[in-house]
Amino acid sequence: MNSTSFFPSGELRERLLVHRLDMAHPGDVSSLAALLEAGELAAGDVVAVIGKTEGNGGVNDFTRGYFTQSLMGLLARYTGQPAEALQRRVPCVLSGGTEGVLSPHYVIFARRREAAAGAAGALAVGTAFSDPVPAQDVGRWAQVRAAAAAVRMAMRQAGIEHPKDVRFVQLKCPCVTSARAQAAELAGRTVRTADPARSMAFARAAGAFGAAVALGELPDDPGLESAMLSDFNLRSDRASVSSGVEVDAVEAIVLGHSALWQGSLRMACAPMRDALDIAGVGNALQALDLAAAPQLDGAQATRVAAVFVKCEPDRRGRVRGARHTMLDDTDIDAQRHIRGAVGGLVAGVLGDTRLFVSGGAEHQGPDGGGLVAVIADAG
Amino acid sequence: MNSTSFFPSGELRERLLVHRLDMAHPGDVSSLAALLEAGELAAGDVVAVIGKTEGNGGVNDFTRGYFTQSLMGLLARYTGQPAEALQRRVPCVLSGGTEGVLSPHYVIFARRREAAAGAAGALAVGTAFSDPVPAQDVGRWAQVRAAAAAVRMAMRQAGIEHPKDVRFVQLKCPCVTSARAQAAELAGRTVRTADPARSMAFARAAGAFGAAVALGELPDDPGLESAMLSDFNLRSDRASVSSGVEVDAVEAIVLGHSALWQGSLRMACAPMRDALDIAGVGNALQALDLAAAPQLDGAQATRVAAVFVKCEPDRRGRVRGARHTMLDDTDIDAQRHIRGAVGGLVAGVLGDTRLFVSGGAEHQGPDGGGLVAVIADAG
Amino acid sequence: MNSTSFFPSGELRERLLVHRLDMAHPGDVSSLAALLEAGELAAGDVVAVIGKTEGNGGVNDFTRGYFTQSLMGLLARYTGQPAEALQRRVPCVLSGGTEGVLSPHYVIFARRREAAAGAAGALAVGTAFSDPVPAQDVGRWAQVRAAAAAVRMAMRQAGIEHPKDVRFVQLKCPCVTSARAQAAELAGRTVRTADPARSMAFARAAGAFGAAVALGELPDDPGLESAMLSDFNLRSDRASVSSGVEVDAVEAIVLGHSALWQGSLRMACAPMRDALDIAGVGNALQALDLAAAPQLDGAQATRVAAVFVKCEPDRRGRVRGARHTMLDDTDIDAQRHIRGAVGGLVAGVLGDTRLFVSGGAEHQGPDGGGLVAVIADAG
Amino acid sequence: MNSTSFFPSGELRERLLVHRLDMAHPGDVSSLAALLEAGELAAGDVVAVIGKTEGNGGVNDFTRGYFTQSLMGLLARYTGQPAEALQRRVPCVLSGGTEGVLSPHYVIFARRREAAAGAAGALAVGTAFSDPVPAQDVGRWAQVRAAAAAVRMAMRQAGIEHPKDVRFVQLKCPCVTSARAQAAELAGRTVRTADPARSMAFARAAGAFGAAVALGELPDDPGLESAMLSDFNLRSDRASVSSGVEVDAVEAIVLGHSALWQGSLRMACAPMRDALDIAGVGNALQALDLAAAPQLDGAQATRVAAVFVKCEPDRRGRVRGARHTMLDDTDIDAQRHIRGAVGGLVAGVLGDTRLFVSGGAEHQGPDGGGLVAVIADAG
Repeated sequence: MNSTSFFPSGELRERLLVHRLDMAHPGDVSSLAALLEAGELAAGDVVAVIGKTEGNGGVNDFTRGYFTQSLMGLLARYTGQPAEALQRRVPCVLSGGTEGVLSPHYVIFARRREAAAGAAGALAVGTAFSDPVPAQDVGRWAQVRAAAAAVRMAMRQAGIEHPKDVRFVQLKCPCVTSARAQAAELAGRTVRTADPARSMAFARAAGAFGAAVALGELPDDPGLESAMLSDFNLRSDRASVSSGVEVDAVEAIVLGHSALWQGSLRMACAPMRDALDIAGVGNALQALDLAAAPQLDGAQATRVAAVFVKCEPDRRGRVRGARHTMLDDTDIDAQRHIRGAVGGLVAGVLGDTRLFVSGGAEHQGPDGGGLVAVIADAG
Repeated sequence: MNSTSFFPSGELRERLLVHRLDMAHPGDVSSLAALLEAGELAAGDVVAVIGKTEGNGGVNDFTRGYFTQSLMGLLARYTGQPAEALQRRVPCVLSGGTEGVLSPHYVIFARRREAAAGAAGALAVGTAFSDPVPAQDVGRWAQVRAAAAAVRMAMRQAGIEHPKDVRFVQLKCPCVTSARAQAAELAGRTVRTADPARSMAFARAAGAFGAAVALGELPDDPGLESAMLSDFNLRSDRASVSSGVEVDAVEAIVLGHSALWQGSLRMACAPMRDALDIAGVGNALQALDLAAAPQLDGAQATRVAAVFVKCEPDRRGRVRGARHTMLDDTDIDAQRHIRGAVGGLVAGVLGDTRLFVSGGAEHQGPDGGGLVAVIADAG
Repeated sequence: MNSTSFFPSGELRERLLVHRLDMAHPGDVSSLAALLEAGELAAGDVVAVIGKTEGNGGVNDFTRGYFTQSLMGLLARYTGQPAEALQRRVPCVLSGGTEGVLSPHYVIFARRREAAAGAAGALAVGTAFSDPVPAQDVGRWAQVRAAAAAVRMAMRQAGIEHPKDVRFVQLKCPCVTSARAQAAELAGRTVRTADPARSMAFARAAGAFGAAVALGELPDDPGLESAMLSDFNLRSDRASVSSGVEVDAVEAIVLGHSALWQGSLRMACAPMRDALDIAGVGNALQALDLAAAPQLDGAQATRVAAVFVKCEPDRRGRVRGARHTMLDDTDIDAQRHIRGAVGGLVAGVLGDTRLFVSGGAEHQGPDGGGLVAVIADAG
Repeated sequence: MNSTSFFPSGELRERLLVHRLDMAHPGDVSSLAALLEAGELAAGDVVAVIGKTEGNGGVNDFTRGYFTQSLMGLLARYTGQPAEALQRRVPCVLSGGTEGVLSPHYVIFARRREAAAGAAGALAVGTAFSDPVPAQDVGRWAQVRAAAAAVRMAMRQAGIEHPKDVRFVQLKCPCVTSARAQAAELAGRTVRTADPARSMAFARAAGAFGAAVALGELPDDPGLESAMLSDFNLRSDRASVSSGVEVDAVEAIVLGHSALWQGSLRMACAPMRDALDIAGVGNALQALDLAAAPQLDGAQATRVAAVFVKCEPDRRGRVRGARHTMLDDTDIDAQRHIRGAVGGLVAGVLGDTRLFVSGGAEHQGPDGGGLVAVIADAG
């Protein structure tokens, strides 16, 4: 693939459009339909979607598949392309679970070609799909390489020259259900784990390693396979990875700054060292000339286009020395616990609950913490 | 009862001691045992306990009863008094549910008589128990009056002269299980509701009304009975109410400033207007000369002796205009959701997860919000 | 509407086809697609669907909407009719929650006109939709009448002459979410309850009353409105009612014996007096010449085409004198508990887990019990 | 230890007393208190307790610890022995989780010496405690041997001569919480798994292997360690194993027939080949001359003294060919699902919900099934 093919000559530039939309339930895409109907957005310009749906975020969370089917059906009607083809072209990365104050919503990323005007350089987006990842590859180095290749392809597509210009990588990786594990076993394959929840964790770890390899944070060394879910010093500080039953390949969305794009959108990402790292949230905002005191005021809040957070229940069982109970809870999944807590914190700083807060931050940001990324209008 | 009987002559004063202790599980009172064993605390000086245990906070949360049994057993061994008698003298108000980052812990309140030294005036504590509240009185004006009387009795016992000097009222009120509802019905009584969760809400509402009556925030008007769980403008801004199956009377703990006490402990309480009201947390801290920027620093954090928060999933289904999903969730109780979210926010500001965060803030602070109370050492 | 219009002249008869199909997840309709593709079933002959999906069965169970969208999309492709039109013609009644051993599946009901051959008289099916039921009518007599009218219309459509020939009525009724309750309130309407779970119960109660009115088990007396969820002696012994956010009208499916139909399918329905009433299951089987000793043998099991069960956690808190804990559980919804238990019992007798077991049996069969209905091939 | 020391000379015999008692909550031992108060039972004769409490049955189920504390406190008051000593002498094996119709209850086993009268030979009980099992031994062969030794010791204490006379072995084994895993790791030890739920499974597997070794069903071969949770053909058909955070040693209760005892109690145990194996329940009953048709009648039901069931969500994801959803559910633990389903089935056959139904049947009975054991009065 030739990356230049994505880009116009000097007189034309790309522009990123970001729409943060609400949904009344996981089958509701009426807010997007209204934009399309009004002509504010062309269905063919949509290149990626990241959203939060109100499921449990676990293996049996079908709100992701439901929303995806609804979204692709809508885009199919407006583009005239079959939904199946769209699903292979437009990554739709959903994280289930709107615990606590979090609000179900989705962020539409669109790119539009237009005449060059004003200064060059703006937030850019690129996407890519890997080949299908078979059950036996989930959580293994084969998945790491599939993810790294997808990230690199998305960078090229976005026209992002250097890994350092990448601000945020969002991946969605397939996992192994007990049914898939059965099937693989019958076919003589060994899955890394047949435990569905554990499989989702391995899928996220391998995705994070893949992003880190592509961004130069980790070497492409298969010997590191054993470090997954064991050595948490190995990590990416700009990768957010989800996993779910509804995808069979790695889907990548890469956001970063590129001289081939124009517009006022910028992005920043900062690590969170633990679940209480309110200063980490401030760091991401500060890089975009936003200051919470202690909360963004109304004018600043309107500049925020989207927020993405990864977090993790500290696996050592303590936060700042005090015991937490997330990991020993048979009633509520640990990821649901942490999403609710960190979501409450970030929402308090932003004054907004429309946050993509995703659990399962293994190897994504500091161990026991995670990261926070913000897209804002530079004004 | 004559309140002067609680207090010594002018040469003696009372002092409040506050210990915030961790627990490894709801049957673990070893941290208190260590204090008693070391002589740092006399079992007979303990007058009240407020804590968070790691149950679900609902009707079938038995961690509260388990901890109470363990605590009373320990105090019985050290005081020589029977556990049953202690349970009728030392209110132990527990809120179940350590969602998200919250850490199971308990706060021991003790009072000690000592020679007057230095300036008079400090944080004081008083306690009281109402008569048993029968199932048919739960959520009715009879419970309101029982609660108000208990608050007034506790004020007298604390030597708090004016309602305005009260900083915080913690109540625990009995509720109706389906078994109790059956029994009442067989006895020809009508309970306000036989739904256990609804009954807990009514019990909290009546407790809040009772505190408001005692503090002069509401009149003692039985006509207001119908306003419970319906007119949320009627409220107390200094009351925190729990309810549970393990008590059969209203238990009251009143904290406030009194000239008859000495020491450096002070308390402040501020309303939270909604679940994102990070400024409300700052208000409570500011009143104690504490400033989070954005988090308390280490020196300030050590001055904090205990924190109490009430919160509530906004019953209108939105937080700052964005839909939340707490009230329509069949998997996780709405109170668990909101505790996790607000707990995450307050923990981020305090830099500490040992917070008493209790759901069910009906009529306790602003509708859809709640309140936050802090005890700190004045230094 | 003229019922005769549904039926052919004497040389033609109707035949009911029943297919019980599995699904791999709530978006999977591949088993039906295979039947349509193979020409074993004509999409235009499908008149109703009853199924169980693997959600939580509560207000936030979106597996029902997801499956419905998938099903209607498939039928739309094969019939050429728009999905929206199909959804208004083909009732798809889903119950969420496959607790315990229950298996996600769906039962397709199709009717086919064919030359009269052999004896007349067989199991018949008819369907109907009421007008939309506004939020303020849910759980009120207006909903009862809407349900009764829908049942009568479906009987006519099925060619079932007498109410006594009706074997089973399946209804799906709309309920009130907190969002709908808000909207109704803003419009000056009072909903019977704003509590989502309670609203679902009222919706089921009103549906059951409606069926009972249509079947002559109860009079059409608005004075009985107050008996809903209070006098459980008033009931239908042949009605099964679900409720959910995904419908806005009462959808009715009526099954019974009609002389205008032919074929070997027969149906029987028996009340279950409580959750342990294994004899009740035997009664339904016996009416179809099936005998479990203690389980149906293989030959008998293949004769069973579909099974429908309604059940209920006994609201008095006891089963045969022993306390149960279903109603006081904050972790697991009571309906999930009872579906799992009764599903386990009926599956053990049938030797099959593909059972439609639905909770919320208020006024459907005996109080604290429910009913069991079986469709079998007469051989 | 000399087993004969437990037994009297020929003129005296032992008699087993079994009391099945209800509890209103996990801290309620009033039914036992009433028996002790009335003199119907001597506290010193109590040798073991098996019960079901209404927790979640997982790592954070504290209803077991709460009940144990309450029980031991009561026995301490009546025996004059310290609760701690009693806890080391009287195994109290509790399974949390009364899903569906199951009723919280406990079975008291007492032995009483009395003059020989009538025929010799009756159901006997023996108990034993292993040394503490450190975290790193959980799920390893060291735990298998600890369990086997405890079973043999209990057999000797019961006077059961041959393994074939053993009817039922109940074990409770310690597991690893995340806190314990942390501690072990700090001490340089490697736990078999740090995942709490997985650790409970390994603890049960090792307990089952231990019982099988003691009963001659498996050889004492450390090479079999890797077969735990992997080769499910290796099993005991008479062992029931629970695990929990509240014990640190293997506790064993062995029930079987012995010529040194007298009385009319007999016991039978039968495997269940899967969760629908209603015939397996019949087999256990038949061995005791009980016949369900389809349910035990009143006279027969009164002969039943206690029932113990082990069950397991089939790890292959299917029951009799149809998919189940227990293993992929993030909302409800798989063990809770299966207990509810199998509990419903067995309760329907027995006509009684006071059943000890315990999940986690790894290597206890057939894979995907489990076993059912019944104590009855021979009449």
